[in-house]
Amino acid sequence: MKKMEQLYEGKAKKVFATDDPNLVIVDYKDDATALNGKKRGTIVGKGAINNMMTNRLMKMLEKNGIPTHFVEEISQRETVVRKVQIVPLEVIVRNVAAGSLSKRLGIPEGTPMRKPVIEYCYKCDELDDPMVNEYHIAAMGWASDEQMAKIAEYALKIDSILIRYFKDINVDLIDFKLEFGVTGDGTLVLADEISPDTCRFWDATTHDKLDKDRFRRDMGGVEDAYLEMARRLQIEE
Amino acid sequence: MKKMEQLYEGKAKKVFATDDPNLVIVDYKDDATALNGKKRGTIVGKGAINNMMTNRLMKMLEKNGIPTHFVEEISQRETVVRKVQIVPLEVIVRNVAAGSLSKRLGIPEGTPMRKPVIEYCYKCDELDDPMVNEYHIAAMGWASDEQMAKIAEYALKIDSILIRYFKDINVDLIDFKLEFGVTGDGTLVLADEISPDTCRFWDATTHDKLDKDRFRRDMGGVEDAYLEMARRLQIEE
Repeated sequence: MKKMEQLYEGKAKKVFATDDPNLVIVDYKDDATALNGKKRGTIVGKGAINNMMTNRLMKMLEKNGIPTHFVEEISQRETVVRKVQIVPLEVIVRNVAAGSLSKRLGIPEGTPMRKPVIEYCYKCDELDDPMVNEYHIAAMGWASDEQMAKIAEYALKIDSILIRYFKDINVDLIDFKLEFGVTGDGTLVLADEISPDTCRFWDATTHDKLDKDRFRRDMGGVEDAYLEMARRLQIEE
Repeated sequence: MKKMEQLYEGKAKKVFATDDPNLVIVDYKDDATALNGKKRGTIVGKGAINNMMTNRLMKMLEKNGIPTHFVEEISQRETVVRKVQIVPLEVIVRNVAAGSLSKRLGIPEGTPMRKPVIEYCYKCDELDDPMVNEYHIAAMGWASDEQMAKIAEYALKIDSILIRYFKDINVDLIDFKLEFGVTGDGTLVLADEISPDTCRFWDATTHDKLDKDRFRRDMGGVEDAYLEMARRLQIEE
């Protein structure tokens, strides 16, 4: 496996080509952004933690029947993944009201949802990732109806698996964001990352925030929160 | 039928009790508001036109298998309707990009949608009627899954009926807003109104706007637009 030219640099990761056209290498950065890039900073150690946590979770989800892009972790910050065409949607799953849902619907943070809520946002920085629904997605051709049915099915299954997984380390999974991609052979797979950047994790006892909200909201203790999640998951650095 | 005490005054209509507990009288006003009530004005003749147009369309939709709240027109501005508990959702159907959809998704006004798009907004002035999806609606208990399935089915059927109906008077139905209610016996029915207040109507040849956008956007010719729609539908004042 040869790491070749950089294909793409996102807010939190770089992607490199390899000598296999079906595989790329993801390289996690310590850069942090929030508010659609308007707030910027560094969270020391984040890249390694997010890489290793994502890989741990993707492997576990694969065993539970969720296809993912994961192939092989090659360093603390680098992972070989299947090359995919990303479905241009943020798939958000919410178990407890927080963040934008609390604001939009006037529900206090921490209110449990009676059923898990899925939201879709169109990935477009210029438009501020607007919320969309299945009708917009179908009309705009961002994904097929069959892909959307699978995405909703996977999202709810991932939610119930992750809730149990994090409960074991005394963490409540408040909400999280997923992205899906389509491989060269047309398979829909879970892509991107699952980490304190993309999930809200609250300590189940104290309700302390163990995620990027500490950065977004200038709460301090940002690195400690990422380290605490790594420690509970027994991720070795 | 006796008109009794006023039960409710909305932005464009008043609702009165009658001596029949299952029936109320809707009284259409000439008051116009936009931008969630921040813009106010009067459109002379609007109440009568909207009342008569709504009744014409509701009767036609009933004949085509859509249950509605319509009972009887008792004056130019007043109509007896079945008393309903309103489902707290604005059900928006879009055939062509315009207004908030154009802005949110960055699509020029006038772009046809490949398929009709349904949007749901939670009716709540304080929250500015936020867009929601079926998951929010289920989690918040605003409507049952069965009611939502019917609402989507009715909305698309109404869309295809109205597109044809307005095509006959050389009007393109760009988008429109519906509200549904539940009667005392649990029946889901179409409620509220269907008028230039709640629809975007464009002349099919010139693309002139024949609806409330003329008021919202200070385009002038507001009353003339309502009168022109009444004239084309041969509504007698």
